[in-house]
Amino acid sequence: MFDFTDRDLKEPHDIRIIGAPFDGTVSFRPGARFGPAAIRDASDGVETYSPFLDIDLEGVHYSDIGDLELPMGDVGAVLSIIREAVEECLADDVTPFLLGGEHLVSLPAIEAVFEKYPDLVVVQLDAHADQRDDYLGVKLSHACVMRRVSELIGDGNVRQLGIRSGTQREYELMRGFGTLSTFRDDDLDELVEWIGERPVYLTVDLDVFDPACFPGTGTPEPGGIDWWTFQRFIKVMQGCDIVGLDAVELAPQLDSSGCSSVLAAKVVREMLLILKG
Amino acid sequence: MFDFTDRDLKEPHDIRIIGAPFDGTVSFRPGARFGPAAIRDASDGVETYSPFLDIDLEGVHYSDIGDLELPMGDVGAVLSIIREAVEECLADDVTPFLLGGEHLVSLPAIEAVFEKYPDLVVVQLDAHADQRDDYLGVKLSHACVMRRVSELIGDGNVRQLGIRSGTQREYELMRGFGTLSTFRDDDLDELVEWIGERPVYLTVDLDVFDPACFPGTGTPEPGGIDWWTFQRFIKVMQGCDIVGLDAVELAPQLDSSGCSSVLAAKVVREMLLILKG
Amino acid sequence: MFDFTDRDLKEPHDIRIIGAPFDGTVSFRPGARFGPAAIRDASDGVETYSPFLDIDLEGVHYSDIGDLELPMGDVGAVLSIIREAVEECLADDVTPFLLGGEHLVSLPAIEAVFEKYPDLVVVQLDAHADQRDDYLGVKLSHACVMRRVSELIGDGNVRQLGIRSGTQREYELMRGFGTLSTFRDDDLDELVEWIGERPVYLTVDLDVFDPACFPGTGTPEPGGIDWWTFQRFIKVMQGCDIVGLDAVELAPQLDSSGCSSVLAAKVVREMLLILKG
Amino acid sequence: MFDFTDRDLKEPHDIRIIGAPFDGTVSFRPGARFGPAAIRDASDGVETYSPFLDIDLEGVHYSDIGDLELPMGDVGAVLSIIREAVEECLADDVTPFLLGGEHLVSLPAIEAVFEKYPDLVVVQLDAHADQRDDYLGVKLSHACVMRRVSELIGDGNVRQLGIRSGTQREYELMRGFGTLSTFRDDDLDELVEWIGERPVYLTVDLDVFDPACFPGTGTPEPGGIDWWTFQRFIKVMQGCDIVGLDAVELAPQLDSSGCSSVLAAKVVREMLLILKG
Amino acid sequence: MFDFTDRDLKEPHDIRIIGAPFDGTVSFRPGARFGPAAIRDASDGVETYSPFLDIDLEGVHYSDIGDLELPMGDVGAVLSIIREAVEECLADDVTPFLLGGEHLVSLPAIEAVFEKYPDLVVVQLDAHADQRDDYLGVKLSHACVMRRVSELIGDGNVRQLGIRSGTQREYELMRGFGTLSTFRDDDLDELVEWIGERPVYLTVDLDVFDPACFPGTGTPEPGGIDWWTFQRFIKVMQGCDIVGLDAVELAPQLDSSGCSSVLAAKVVREMLLILKG
Amino acid sequence: MFDFTDRDLKEPHDIRIIGAPFDGTVSFRPGARFGPAAIRDASDGVETYSPFLDIDLEGVHYSDIGDLELPMGDVGAVLSIIREAVEECLADDVTPFLLGGEHLVSLPAIEAVFEKYPDLVVVQLDAHADQRDDYLGVKLSHACVMRRVSELIGDGNVRQLGIRSGTQREYELMRGFGTLSTFRDDDLDELVEWIGERPVYLTVDLDVFDPACFPGTGTPEPGGIDWWTFQRFIKVMQGCDIVGLDAVELAPQLDSSGCSSVLAAKVVREMLLILKG
Repeated sequence: MFDFTDRDLKEPHDIRIIGAPFDGTVSFRPGARFGPAAIRDASDGVETYSPFLDIDLEGVHYSDIGDLELPMGDVGAVLSIIREAVEECLADDVTPFLLGGEHLVSLPAIEAVFEKYPDLVVVQLDAHADQRDDYLGVKLSHACVMRRVSELIGDGNVRQLGIRSGTQREYELMRGFGTLSTFRDDDLDELVEWIGERPVYLTVDLDVFDPACFPGTGTPEPGGIDWWTFQRFIKVMQGCDIVGLDAVELAPQLDSSGCSSVLAAKVVREMLLILKG
Repeated sequence: MFDFTDRDLKEPHDIRIIGAPFDGTVSFRPGARFGPAAIRDASDGVETYSPFLDIDLEGVHYSDIGDLELPMGDVGAVLSIIREAVEECLADDVTPFLLGGEHLVSLPAIEAVFEKYPDLVVVQLDAHADQRDDYLGVKLSHACVMRRVSELIGDGNVRQLGIRSGTQREYELMRGFGTLSTFRDDDLDELVEWIGERPVYLTVDLDVFDPACFPGTGTPEPGGIDWWTFQRFIKVMQGCDIVGLDAVELAPQLDSSGCSSVLAAKVVREMLLILKG
Repeated sequence: MFDFTDRDLKEPHDIRIIGAPFDGTVSFRPGARFGPAAIRDASDGVETYSPFLDIDLEGVHYSDIGDLELPMGDVGAVLSIIREAVEECLADDVTPFLLGGEHLVSLPAIEAVFEKYPDLVVVQLDAHADQRDDYLGVKLSHACVMRRVSELIGDGNVRQLGIRSGTQREYELMRGFGTLSTFRDDDLDELVEWIGERPVYLTVDLDVFDPACFPGTGTPEPGGIDWWTFQRFIKVMQGCDIVGLDAVELAPQLDSSGCSSVLAAKVVREMLLILKG
Repeated sequence: MFDFTDRDLKEPHDIRIIGAPFDGTVSFRPGARFGPAAIRDASDGVETYSPFLDIDLEGVHYSDIGDLELPMGDVGAVLSIIREAVEECLADDVTPFLLGGEHLVSLPAIEAVFEKYPDLVVVQLDAHADQRDDYLGVKLSHACVMRRVSELIGDGNVRQLGIRSGTQREYELMRGFGTLSTFRDDDLDELVEWIGERPVYLTVDLDVFDPACFPGTGTPEPGGIDWWTFQRFIKVMQGCDIVGLDAVELAPQLDSSGCSSVLAAKVVREMLLILKG
Repeated sequence: MFDFTDRDLKEPHDIRIIGAPFDGTVSFRPGARFGPAAIRDASDGVETYSPFLDIDLEGVHYSDIGDLELPMGDVGAVLSIIREAVEECLADDVTPFLLGGEHLVSLPAIEAVFEKYPDLVVVQLDAHADQRDDYLGVKLSHACVMRRVSELIGDGNVRQLGIRSGTQREYELMRGFGTLSTFRDDDLDELVEWIGERPVYLTVDLDVFDPACFPGTGTPEPGGIDWWTFQRFIKVMQGCDIVGLDAVELAPQLDSSGCSSVLAAKVVREMLLILKG
Repeated sequence: MFDFTDRDLKEPHDIRIIGAPFDGTVSFRPGARFGPAAIRDASDGVETYSPFLDIDLEGVHYSDIGDLELPMGDVGAVLSIIREAVEECLADDVTPFLLGGEHLVSLPAIEAVFEKYPDLVVVQLDAHADQRDDYLGVKLSHACVMRRVSELIGDGNVRQLGIRSGTQREYELMRGFGTLSTFRDDDLDELVEWIGERPVYLTVDLDVFDPACFPGTGTPEPGGIDWWTFQRFIKVMQGCDIVGLDAVELAPQLDSSGCSSVLAAKVVREMLLILKG
């Protein structure tokens, strides 16, 4: 079993896990704030070895700094605190791995990573486009986060997989910019080719999974991927230069069986494993 | 997001949503009475645009009259009230769209529609045959509803997709009459050809979905369809002359994650969208 | 509907269902002790007829002796009581069908069956290898049960399907002994050929199913099988000489929708049906 | 622990437990159909000895015939089946003890008992008056059951304790007839005096308890009694000539902690104990 | 049963119910955003008549404008929208009755009411002092709302009942200003005398109730009041000049039995009833 | 808020919290293994200051060593590990504070404490006598723990408060030895007098609370105490020489509202506070 809390920040490490328990802009059902803690708890029942990748976490040097203390009700302060934690990480030459929290927490992380890597590309796994310009007048919202990211790094530098929900306007945008891709084998090959040598930030909104596999999320969307599709994706990404990553939108209390938390922990394990040189 | 309650009966409309919160003959686990309310609540978090169909609910003229007040304990009265509401709908030249409730609520709706359209055919999506002659001596039971329908419109005018549970006797009947069909592409094509120009009533017992996708139902049956299978079906039905339709057997309290209600709301959206001229 | 409790031990029978409500060595999340009762309850809503196999339970002669009274806290005594119940069964020339409980309950059953059938082979459906030598120093643990079985009947006489979680060491063992197999059609054919005329004990750890289908289990593992894969498996096994069987690791309280219990009851039905001469 | 299922109808007995799993007229939240099974399950964890009464169930001769098979959707048939079971009980000179189900199940039981004991008085513990003339036009409804009983045996022969919810009209009725009483010591003394030597039917709608103690019921009403108040009541009733009794309206699935079922089982135990000659 | 949605804004009314579904500054467990909807749903099962007060809602003229649309993530905008709705209410000479949401929603309501009634006093029922100066640097937080109110209207114009949790510093403040009171009869009499003829805003944080009665709240505190204590309080307040009121902090999804929502609906009914001239 | 995990073993401390997550002998409903973690989580939302005692945890020197790793399935090894941890504690002149886990974990703790303090008395708060000689033949069971303790330290050196469930035999024993006491003020005074200067081990089985307050436990018993009764008890114990203590039998997953965990955390806080010199 792998247990984050065994790992100490003081040991030398290549990857740093940062809990960002914020869900303050969620419009539908909150609870993603409990995501990082649930992933840590569930990790206790997950093996360190991945039979599919045939790699073990033994030998992956990661640490976990626990959850940031985020002041609910002050979005600006929350984003600053996250950004600082990621900047510190990068200053230490360590890869940041954020655990959300809602999807908005990716924004300050990508900002910090983009500052260090100006040729950054972002790969987004998600059920939702998150490409609205604003949501009820709020621009810093989980429903707008990829619009903000696209504005920052350029629409041409984003790829989106698994999207199956959005407004007509969002789909026009995404189709116009050609950001949409799929999990078909040839599309995955094309994705990796498109990434090439460029540094990549991988943001996994866990609602990319089908609600059957992952009911524990605020805005479930029927029609998502299953575990083996994710495994194929992860294997393909293995060679890429991943410089930052996150897994967001687990709202564990919505799935009383606990299976969503277990899946999230196993997703995190696979993401850690492909970072291993 | 689409929100039924925004829609007012007084505006001109082509489709009328009618809540039929009855589950009085359910033998196993009740709760379908809460279905219509749960679909309305969940619809609030579902986009109006379907990327698969590439249509938006903007432009679909529907209204929602809310839930009928149904006297639990008096099945006869319940069925009369539903039938009257559907008749009124048809008198107004509006397509009735019933939200159940248990499957028995389809019977008075089909009776009313059949009176107006004597060449009616019925397409049933369901996990269960519902072809028993009686259940513990009761003839007006959710377990017998399609037997009653078949007696009314003729066994030759019914097609059943997704059935995977029944008695040996029910299977003999269904195999004898040739009412069983599947979601394979060629069977779907054959279905549409069989329907032809005839008016069709589409009854969707939501337990046609696999319990993995839709655990919130009284009598779950492993082995059901997933979202994309339903999408293929809905696309194929797009050209048909649908004159009445329903979605039944959501028992939302059985799925504490709320995912079943979200799926049901999305099913309702797709069903509304293919009615658009 | 099939209802175990209708069946009386005194009637002549070929199969005897034995509840073994023990979960005392479970390390992660307990609750499998409630499995047998939940399967019995759910069986009440499941038809006796299997459309896929086209067989009805009418004509299958089974009885149910209910749950053994097992003293929590004394593993040795628990295993003895189970073993005696299975031995008695075999002495009566009746096939034992154990309902767990955790997977450790299979050990005394296999010991008893092996004593009667020294050329026994074991077919294990499972998400987990269960091949650890010990777990926190405990040798009689659910995590070690198949290691104990392998030591007893020989590693060459075990086949494992559906395994997707284990330590690196366990995978080395399993790959070395060649015990791993899959649900692909050709592998299933090969499996049946390998069994040949030999008596077989079939142990189904229900967590072989994907958590989407079967969230009600202590240690869910994403990436499991669905209902139709199990149906193909069961059909292939139909001709084999099954001399003992079990279904274990349903923890019903972890799935508040009840769907896991329904699936388990349907699995038990299919397993009973293929025993019919 | 006391376990109903140990008791066999064939043994001589003075009290007969009859499960009446019907909830077909419930308007708000169904689920009382699962009450009898939940009481039986919970009884397994309850001691046979009552420290307060200082009596043990050893020596009380009761049997349990299990649940009647009741056809949901046909209220008339349901009431007939219950009435017959109670009549059979009385013909055998055995005291009937009904486990509901909704409160309407008391009506046929009281009818049968009243036929045998024309000077019957009824003591009702309840949160709700249940004195409506009809509910949405339905006269045989859980909301009207005590009106029907009052019409049958005479308003002067009913006493109601714990009532805290009703319409203005119902309160006018009850105040007019003087049927309302309380759990204060002097009122309890007065109650027993009023009963005198007359045969009494005791109907306990378990929602008389505060929702804090008993959340598992369809229509909870804040302001109810606690366990010790019930104990005082039961002690006072010990000398009365109880000729029929019931405990109704446990809807166990509404209380996921299971505490409501445990309380109901303990209530049933105390009610059994005071029947001991 | 009383059903808010029957009431139309256009009818003349004396009281206006305003849903304020905001929980954006909640630090522990969110979900109060679902409070207003849950109270409306539960009100459907609650009688219009209060036996204790002997008054019926017939004759109370209230309307319900439903929920305000509040942009999660922008606290400033949220508070403005609430304040405007309350101001509009007061401009129409109608008493505002806010349904929260978290306790912070009381602040803009009290601000608006205070502007109209400069001699306003505030009576707070609550488990928590809510008197922190800031919480993690945030001044507009549910944990600080009564500090803000006290600064606005003067510490001497606030009375707090039911408080049982706070920091040592908060208790020093409250003891210093003498704002703490109890539900003892003489203290209630003293409270009413203290209020005198002054206009009073009554804010009921529902967590003043014991978690036994009201588990559905974000920060439960053992040791709270029960229903009858609240009834005594409400009766005493009957003669006061209540010019604004609210009921906040129901988080219905935390109480799967639904009893917390029923209690909240019954609290709202009693609060409406004492407003009746 | 008080957060155990802030406290480090290396700092000097007077009290040491030890998690003992064992529930292996529980016969009815397991889950107490999750108790210590749930208390830690809930402590995060509980203030450090007790208004009733008027003391703050600032100034109490305690540390938390987290959970012992206990091998499920080997009761002997489990008890040894707990005993060693407590012995180490005592060797460091630190007061052990065990968090269960089931009640059996108190046995090794009391054994260790008794070895150091031969004139030890034990005060037990509990719903159940726990005085059986064996349970299904098992002597080291949660149902027998106080029998074992009584045998060890002498029946005359035990006092039991809150007991309301047991066999007739257990009550005979307890009445014979005079170990039963109550929470009445005079009995509490008598208790403290009886303790006198002797060292006391305080074991709090949290099911002493009424299930209304504390539904999250394996074997709930109606009729228990509330928060204020516990507060009176704790205040009375303030002057005693407490040399060891525990709080056991929280099974948090049985109370989905989380209120039981909050109450347990608040109980632990009060117990820590009275240890303050």
